[in-house]
Amino acid sequence: LGVVERKAWKLGCVDVIVVDARESFCKEYLTPAIRANAVYEGKYPLSTALARPLIAQRVVEAARRHKAKFVAHGATGKGNDQVRFDVSFAALAPELKIIAPVREWSMTREQEIEYAKKNNIPVPVDVHNPYSIDANLWGKSTECGVLEDPWVEPPADAHNWVSPIEKTPDKPAYCTIDFKTGVPCGLNGKEMKLIDIISRLNQLGAQHGVGLIDMVENRLVGIKSRETYEAPAASVILAAHRDLESLTLTRDLLHFKRIAEERYAELVYDGLWFTQLREALDVFFAHTQHRVDGTVRIKLLKGNCRVVGRKSPFSLYDESLATYDEGDRFDHTAAVGFIKLWGLPHKVAAATEKKKK
Amino acid sequence: LGVVERKAWKLGCVDVIVVDARESFCKEYLTPAIRANAVYEGKYPLSTALARPLIAQRVVEAARRHKAKFVAHGATGKGNDQVRFDVSFAALAPELKIIAPVREWSMTREQEIEYAKKNNIPVPVDVHNPYSIDANLWGKSTECGVLEDPWVEPPADAHNWVSPIEKTPDKPAYCTIDFKTGVPCGLNGKEMKLIDIISRLNQLGAQHGVGLIDMVENRLVGIKSRETYEAPAASVILAAHRDLESLTLTRDLLHFKRIAEERYAELVYDGLWFTQLREALDVFFAHTQHRVDGTVRIKLLKGNCRVVGRKSPFSLYDESLATYDEGDRFDHTAAVGFIKLWGLPHKVAAATEKKKK
Amino acid sequence: LGVVERKAWKLGCVDVIVVDARESFCKEYLTPAIRANAVYEGKYPLSTALARPLIAQRVVEAARRHKAKFVAHGATGKGNDQVRFDVSFAALAPELKIIAPVREWSMTREQEIEYAKKNNIPVPVDVHNPYSIDANLWGKSTECGVLEDPWVEPPADAHNWVSPIEKTPDKPAYCTIDFKTGVPCGLNGKEMKLIDIISRLNQLGAQHGVGLIDMVENRLVGIKSRETYEAPAASVILAAHRDLESLTLTRDLLHFKRIAEERYAELVYDGLWFTQLREALDVFFAHTQHRVDGTVRIKLLKGNCRVVGRKSPFSLYDESLATYDEGDRFDHTAAVGFIKLWGLPHKVAAATEKKKK
Amino acid sequence: LGVVERKAWKLGCVDVIVVDARESFCKEYLTPAIRANAVYEGKYPLSTALARPLIAQRVVEAARRHKAKFVAHGATGKGNDQVRFDVSFAALAPELKIIAPVREWSMTREQEIEYAKKNNIPVPVDVHNPYSIDANLWGKSTECGVLEDPWVEPPADAHNWVSPIEKTPDKPAYCTIDFKTGVPCGLNGKEMKLIDIISRLNQLGAQHGVGLIDMVENRLVGIKSRETYEAPAASVILAAHRDLESLTLTRDLLHFKRIAEERYAELVYDGLWFTQLREALDVFFAHTQHRVDGTVRIKLLKGNCRVVGRKSPFSLYDESLATYDEGDRFDHTAAVGFIKLWGLPHKVAAATEKKKK
Repeated sequence: LGVVERKAWKLGCVDVIVVDARESFCKEYLTPAIRANAVYEGKYPLSTALARPLIAQRVVEAARRHKAKFVAHGATGKGNDQVRFDVSFAALAPELKIIAPVREWSMTREQEIEYAKKNNIPVPVDVHNPYSIDANLWGKSTECGVLEDPWVEPPADAHNWVSPIEKTPDKPAYCTIDFKTGVPCGLNGKEMKLIDIISRLNQLGAQHGVGLIDMVENRLVGIKSRETYEAPAASVILAAHRDLESLTLTRDLLHFKRIAEERYAELVYDGLWFTQLREALDVFFAHTQHRVDGTVRIKLLKGNCRVVGRKSPFSLYDESLATYDEGDRFDHTAAVGFIKLWGLPHKVAAATEKKKK
Repeated sequence: LGVVERKAWKLGCVDVIVVDARESFCKEYLTPAIRANAVYEGKYPLSTALARPLIAQRVVEAARRHKAKFVAHGATGKGNDQVRFDVSFAALAPELKIIAPVREWSMTREQEIEYAKKNNIPVPVDVHNPYSIDANLWGKSTECGVLEDPWVEPPADAHNWVSPIEKTPDKPAYCTIDFKTGVPCGLNGKEMKLIDIISRLNQLGAQHGVGLIDMVENRLVGIKSRETYEAPAASVILAAHRDLESLTLTRDLLHFKRIAEERYAELVYDGLWFTQLREALDVFFAHTQHRVDGTVRIKLLKGNCRVVGRKSPFSLYDESLATYDEGDRFDHTAAVGFIKLWGLPHKVAAATEKKKK
Repeated sequence: LGVVERKAWKLGCVDVIVVDARESFCKEYLTPAIRANAVYEGKYPLSTALARPLIAQRVVEAARRHKAKFVAHGATGKGNDQVRFDVSFAALAPELKIIAPVREWSMTREQEIEYAKKNNIPVPVDVHNPYSIDANLWGKSTECGVLEDPWVEPPADAHNWVSPIEKTPDKPAYCTIDFKTGVPCGLNGKEMKLIDIISRLNQLGAQHGVGLIDMVENRLVGIKSRETYEAPAASVILAAHRDLESLTLTRDLLHFKRIAEERYAELVYDGLWFTQLREALDVFFAHTQHRVDGTVRIKLLKGNCRVVGRKSPFSLYDESLATYDEGDRFDHTAAVGFIKLWGLPHKVAAATEKKKK
Repeated sequence: LGVVERKAWKLGCVDVIVVDARESFCKEYLTPAIRANAVYEGKYPLSTALARPLIAQRVVEAARRHKAKFVAHGATGKGNDQVRFDVSFAALAPELKIIAPVREWSMTREQEIEYAKKNNIPVPVDVHNPYSIDANLWGKSTECGVLEDPWVEPPADAHNWVSPIEKTPDKPAYCTIDFKTGVPCGLNGKEMKLIDIISRLNQLGAQHGVGLIDMVENRLVGIKSRETYEAPAASVILAAHRDLESLTLTRDLLHFKRIAEERYAELVYDGLWFTQLREALDVFFAHTQHRVDGTVRIKLLKGNCRVVGRKSPFSLYDESLATYDEGDRFDHTAAVGFIKLWGLPHKVAAATEKKKK
């Protein structure tokens, strides 16, 4: 029996259902997230945010199996997770009532720990180790404790996935990631399932110090918080994916996609997974990816993840157009006309203002 | 006499004007660029792009002093610089005719080198060292040669600003950057001019391997090209600036600003400096920055530039709202109502679709 | 004494302050709203939404004069106005507590009317005439009653500003509006204050049946509602303003401004007037308007408001470029080069996909 | 034989192919355009712009049937159509060379007319009737002549589709349009094909004076031009479609869709039909429309097209939430919490700035 299971039985639950939903997580959540380059406020790959709607789905399934009238979660009243749970429940099963004791009782972390002790609920923190942690395949988040002061550098004990740079190997690791329709499908030339690629890159990235994130982020509920994340695989995969897109998608598409990506990350962060706009954006992103096939070569060294090569059967990079050497097929004379019309409105505008003055 | 000056006199110019425009560059171009977090396609800090309109301004001044009817530049017919020069000239001095021999004669790089040799024009490349380079205070770009194959890792000889990670110090360097209205004004607690802060950070960043960029980018003239950049100071300053903004600006402002930033970077890249929209966006950005005062603490190590602390008199991070410990002033009960209305449209939408099926 | 004043004294208020804030409304609210073409969801000119923060300002002033600890408003718990009031109060005077009886007591409109009767509070509706109405210089909104069914055509009694088309004059009215930096400053060639121009156009527009709006709109609090508005002056002025912008602003600026306008209208609608982003957007819009001088000629007839002429000293329309007749100064040969590069990325993309198949 | 056919044979063509492509136009072009509410710069429903890529497709088919090496079109060097043709040809058949005599010879309209006369080419204009006209199912555009002065009101002879308001019936016409997945499928309760609905609404709308557009628009080639359009059916259908969307789509989706719509209209206008981004946006729009079923009731009168009723099986308008009368199911107390968190960031920001001052 696992830790959670034992804990649940011990606390007197009438049933305990432990689910390994990693395959669903990869297929239904991480696949669209990768295609969307989903990153909140330029940094956070949404590991926890992406998992919440999936958990809500499974909780609803369990509730229905048990004909339950209530569902409960342990999220606090000032975080994002309560929103993600509650909004998902409301969309999937509006008939279920939600119990959220931590939110309802408005306890401080100290009070929660005390309550747990008094009621023999085993909790993985104590007052002296007060980080609040959540982890899954796509990353780990660590907050609270000394991290609450955004001026303080995260101490060594705050992170245990990603190696401190000082302890990483002196030799770089190179790896290639193969993509098919925007999703990793192979590592170092060997076909692999997404779940296995992520696991392997979490290991490899962490070993080389890649994937530490330290940020002040804007919670949906109106406050700023200082958060730290460890996301080795997400960092590597998203860097590679973005790079392959730069090779295979047109400028027009790439530039508009960035705007759609920002909106998408907001939606996921804000708990709006089961909504019209998220679904429609996923369809948009999925369609853009039918050309995002190819291979990206990555160099991992001392906390750095550098894309050092990329190729694709759909590459729009045309050496015969780009080269400055022999074999150049680009029509240089076209540029003169192009620039003339490109600059024309601004030439007219500048002349008009000068005339006015 | 400098290299350029000697070369010009030797080639028989009637006059040679060499200008140190770095102060103007800092004040009129880098200051707004920092406030706008100006980065093209997520990576390129626009070092060359920002310098072109300034060069055009000075060329126009010189042309007017000499009552010239023509101005010339050496940009090719397939790059971005010709657009930046020509559009700037058209806005500033539409009466001047533009000569661009490299574009007009459509020579390959080999032919250019040959031409230069035949005409005794000293050039800093030869067929065996065929990188095309441009450098200024804000960064250095290197393209051509083996870099034209996007699958090939940049060889060691391609970059000489940023140290290879293998050769960087094992000890981290910490530094603090002070900002005033969004612009660096001090280093390690000492007030300094922007130009000096950039110079110092170029040195320090380069020493620690920070600021190497390798990308496939979309040129305005319709082709993709593989570009590499070295921009140590730009990398450090922009990371620090973005982080300080995350502490001092509201979520609404930050999220909209990202969209405006993308557009701004496009405009600068596309040679549209002297235009209505660029000017209006600068006014927008400048206004947002009156609260972006404060200090950011940076750790440089082995190619990594990590923000490890940030503080500001305008900080919107309120520990008494964010904390999970005693002293929490956040109203937890408010969340229930918030979530109810936040999720309401999606609850209705989900119910409607279910009913339909 | 006015109606409101009499009513207040009669109800036993300790003091009554009636303010004519129309000049402030024009200067501080309508001026930026016109420059921003502020219209929510493509239709609603935000008449009520723009007035709420101004009312909040004056209420706060009064509260401070009286050293009050509480402020009250009569907004319900499901409308937008409560948000606009509460958020404005929170920004301007966070120390004031807010009382909102209608919201707190959760009464239906019937119960409210009954309560009012029982307590001798004169109210302008009864159960048989149950429209809920708000009106100011910029427009009038009418909701509730039969209008709650979005399939029902608004009955004749729902609107009393705008004439039914059947009763409007058969002869068109022409008028010209002069603009200075994006704001109306004259009518039919005569200099006038904004407040007088609006009053006059409300009259003239209403007489010709212009300015009726019927829409299903999305409230901030998560529900859709059917709203009707009468806004003759706003309709005419915004049509004229947009048209003058099309003559004086570049395409780049106009297209980006549309995105910023949408965001601005959301902010105003959502009660976020006293916020960083609204202020920064206003600075942006104001800067764009220094060229929006000129005159627009309008034809009003039978519910139609057509711009039939526009001119400006800053006009970017250049007949010598646009004409197809003699005098054409446009360089037709430039187009060939322009199109070649404009289409190049898409030509490459199409070829790549064909090759793949 | 039709006019075009006779003209072609008379001029000595080796073959003449006249195609009725209206069904394709409806299915492949107007259907996505309606779903996207495609309107350029807030006014122009893109009638000509949407037809060009379809014409290019058919020309390419014909060229291939004849094993032609060249294709020709009559677009000038300063309009948008040359871009739409050339870019479409380049994407569909890059091997074909393009001949565009009007552009290549740089003739004025007078010279063109003279050339036509000299060569016995019948043309529908003369110097005294110099409007340039293009028309199809989706609208008619009229430019040139006196219209080139944006201050001049279009004279009566400029438009012959839409009746002058003075000559329209005094009685309104009501009609209902049924939509299925965002596309009209019935009129007045009778199932009809899109092509027939458009034809009928062109008639009916024109009769009632609906669909006249007069604007200064930004051409892609860098100049402003004054354009007038007649688009009765497009005006009615787009008004109805937008309204039905407001009933069936969530606020989040609607607001983002507006941004995507602007970009889409730009792409279509700019000749970028056969591109990655246009295709991906169409997939996005199509997905959003699976709920846009329902009926819209329209009142046409004296140039006005007013939506006076709308209903849908997917309606998100919930009278029990929206009503202020008995039966209200909205939780009024939720609003207090909602507003607290909604305004929280701005309260903190306001307090911070006050403290600073």
